[in-house]
Amino acid sequence: MKPPATHLDLLQRPLFAHLATVRPDGAPQATPMWFLWDPDSQEIKLTHTKERYNYRNLQHEPRISLSITDPDNAYRYLSMRGVVERIEDDPEGDFYNLLSRRYRGHPIEVKDKAVRVILHVTPTAWRERAG
Amino acid sequence: MKPPATHLDLLQRPLFAHLATVRPDGAPQATPMWFLWDPDSQEIKLTHTKERYNYRNLQHEPRISLSITDPDNAYRYLSMRGVVERIEDDPEGDFYNLLSRRYRGHPIEVKDKAVRVILHVTPTAWRERAG
Repeated sequence: MKPPATHLDLLQRPLFAHLATVRPDGAPQATPMWFLWDPDSQEIKLTHTKERYNYRNLQHEPRISLSITDPDNAYRYLSMRGVVERIEDDPEGDFYNLLSRRYRGHPIEVKDKAVRVILHVTPTAWRERAG
Repeated sequence: MKPPATHLDLLQRPLFAHLATVRPDGAPQATPMWFLWDPDSQEIKLTHTKERYNYRNLQHEPRISLSITDPDNAYRYLSMRGVVERIEDDPEGDFYNLLSRRYRGHPIEVKDKAVRVILHVTPTAWRERAG
């Protein structure tokens, strides 16, 4: 499902997305995250590790939601529901460093690359507010 | 449960919190929201309406999570898990306008005051990142 053209900039700019997952006990969990929008595959990709609680949550419930506000006008926002369709290893930390360049402007030494993964999210619904 | 003293400013400043709820179908939903931290009752209070999807979600699952980033340093954040212990009517929109003053600097005419409610959230867990 395509994102609204009016809000594509929120996917393109290096903003933080707030990720909602569901814990094994059924309660929700919200966490700020880096993300990458891939216009070719129409996926959102997130870097994560196998050791973090959201990874455990996704084993139990692969559906997620993301919420992004425009820092120049917080009433303008984009939210998405989607499904983690695939979890791919990132053994050299290459994807992590793609995001490090996007957010920090430079790569770093990825000390936890042995447990780094790429979450491939397929959007199923979008919601936006004009601001 | 008390919030971390190091991150109290994120509760005191008029920032947006990203609210995670669970839909009746079990999927999570993330939405940016105004909020108020009440240090006396140690509650977070949110304004909402009976007509919005998060209200329906809360009937099904009263547990929520909130995530707040520092706009001056997005790596510094505070997240919370909690429970909506009580939903109170806001028939005059007074609580809505308390938040309108906090966020916009002035009150407005609350056209949907007939369906406005106050969500009273009791925190059960905090997580913070120094930045």
